[in-house]
Amino acid sequence: MSKKRSLSGIKPTGFPHLGNYLGMIRPAIDLQDEYEAYYFAADYHALTTARDPKAMRASVYELTSYFLAFGLDPEKSAFFRQSDIPEVCELTWLLSCVTHMGLLERAHAYKAADAEGRGKEISHGLFSYPVLMAADILIYDSDIVPVGQDQIQHLEMTRDMAQKFNAAFNVDALKLPVAKVQENVATVPGTDGRKMSKSYGNLIEPLLPPKKLRKQCMAIATDSTPLEDPKDPDTCNVFTLYKLFATPSELEDMRQNYLGGGYGYGHAKQALFEKLDAYFSPYREEYQRLRADEAYLEEVLQSGAERVRPAVEEVMDRVRRATGIGRR
Amino acid sequence: MSKKRSLSGIKPTGFPHLGNYLGMIRPAIDLQDEYEAYYFAADYHALTTARDPKAMRASVYELTSYFLAFGLDPEKSAFFRQSDIPEVCELTWLLSCVTHMGLLERAHAYKAADAEGRGKEISHGLFSYPVLMAADILIYDSDIVPVGQDQIQHLEMTRDMAQKFNAAFNVDALKLPVAKVQENVATVPGTDGRKMSKSYGNLIEPLLPPKKLRKQCMAIATDSTPLEDPKDPDTCNVFTLYKLFATPSELEDMRQNYLGGGYGYGHAKQALFEKLDAYFSPYREEYQRLRADEAYLEEVLQSGAERVRPAVEEVMDRVRRATGIGRR
Repeated sequence: MSKKRSLSGIKPTGFPHLGNYLGMIRPAIDLQDEYEAYYFAADYHALTTARDPKAMRASVYELTSYFLAFGLDPEKSAFFRQSDIPEVCELTWLLSCVTHMGLLERAHAYKAADAEGRGKEISHGLFSYPVLMAADILIYDSDIVPVGQDQIQHLEMTRDMAQKFNAAFNVDALKLPVAKVQENVATVPGTDGRKMSKSYGNLIEPLLPPKKLRKQCMAIATDSTPLEDPKDPDTCNVFTLYKLFATPSELEDMRQNYLGGGYGYGHAKQALFEKLDAYFSPYREEYQRLRADEAYLEEVLQSGAERVRPAVEEVMDRVRRATGIGRR
Repeated sequence: MSKKRSLSGIKPTGFPHLGNYLGMIRPAIDLQDEYEAYYFAADYHALTTARDPKAMRASVYELTSYFLAFGLDPEKSAFFRQSDIPEVCELTWLLSCVTHMGLLERAHAYKAADAEGRGKEISHGLFSYPVLMAADILIYDSDIVPVGQDQIQHLEMTRDMAQKFNAAFNVDALKLPVAKVQENVATVPGTDGRKMSKSYGNLIEPLLPPKKLRKQCMAIATDSTPLEDPKDPDTCNVFTLYKLFATPSELEDMRQNYLGGGYGYGHAKQALFEKLDAYFSPYREEYQRLRADEAYLEEVLQSGAERVRPAVEEVMDRVRRATGIGRR
């Protein structure tokens, strides 16, 4: 029996932070054993904001490098560049023709912008990216799409568009994908205690050089309990982050240190840094080795694109026949 | 010195009527001597409403047949199917990323729909077709685009998007096209006296079999002046239509008949029918001969697509470099 196909699109937007790593990258890579896993670097999506072609190319190579470093196996899975499958834009147009404006106006991102009075100023790319995202999924006959809670709406919109297309042309051309909602995802606090997010500037980026990583750890906000006093581990961000990577006995040790007093936040931050550095330094070295070899990275991307091409051609052939476009 | 390039896109929507013929088809074909003329059958655009693949394919062949019958020279010009250049959808996405929603909301067609409270019900394809239309024009480095008064806005939007793209990526990748506004275009009245238009159902379609064409001529609305009375030629639709095809002396003869009395509208309609039939029957025969030869039509379309491909590749290479997408 052949494996089901999973599809993950990742925006190439710089180094991964702990939140990305635990919430998205790790779970995404783990799919490669159970599924026929397709991953793409979403450069078309990045263009809703990106304006620097060199940075764009670099960030695709960066993303490819750290997925490989973290264990993505290009022999097993396909990792490719979104724009190496330009057919996805054609499918976007076809879906646009069966998608009502009302559906897109309900998309969270647009709704929020419009509520703030910025509805007219946002780009059409930002407004219509749910259609591109639907095409991204549907063009590979994807069976499942791993999503966080905040992306469930997109998958529902995708299923809706697929159904509308099939109904409009009275065909069964597009397969309805299923959301694989991640559960038990650890919420990773940033250095300021809020959810770790690029937009808050509260990141810890474990692939950075140790010195910079240490600096980020040291910047974690804590309360002003003096060094000598006992501290509550369960309300401390440093402890929460340490918990994500420490063994149970390491964690218990730190808990006792907190409760015993005479253990400062600086000590805890140092312990966190050492933990992260030890965990990530093999990945970091592998990342650096890979990132320096763009010819190899391009090879991985191209062989990824080749691997997904048969599915693309099959689906595009079905939709072209269904609509009557293109040479026959 | 090489010729400037003109671009005409035509929606494949059935047989041409007299309004199409005089207002668009004839002037479009006339461009082939002065310009390097590109013409395409806009099947992607047709998909905002079309839902029947067989009818879609047939209507592209129909359109190709009558353009050839009316004198389009495939040795001189490129006539192709829009969807045989799917890159136009990729350029549409790239333009979307630099186009504000405000611009599209001002497009006449959307504005009208929204004013009627149908803004949420129209398809995203209909909303975003000005972006596809801009891509249609820009992807061929078009110098000029023949437009009617009602399409001037689209060309302004196209120029706006090209400028926004060039500015956003600090390049000179997209050439700004110029509108070639048709002047002195005869307004062609339909059988009910309003402007001839598919949406009014008041058509005269000169490629129809003579019997049907005659029926359409006979259906022209006139007043109830009795046969024997003199009639005013200048307020009569039959006379107005006759004027578009008659020689000056033929026209003067009919004028005298109107003024003299004893000449009924039925006589005038018969004269109009005979005039149209004589004028169009060679085209009609040629159309039928061509329409029966789909292999040849497909050959014309494919050689048209091949002819425009170098321009497409050049422009797409420029925009991909400018944005940093795709393999390099």
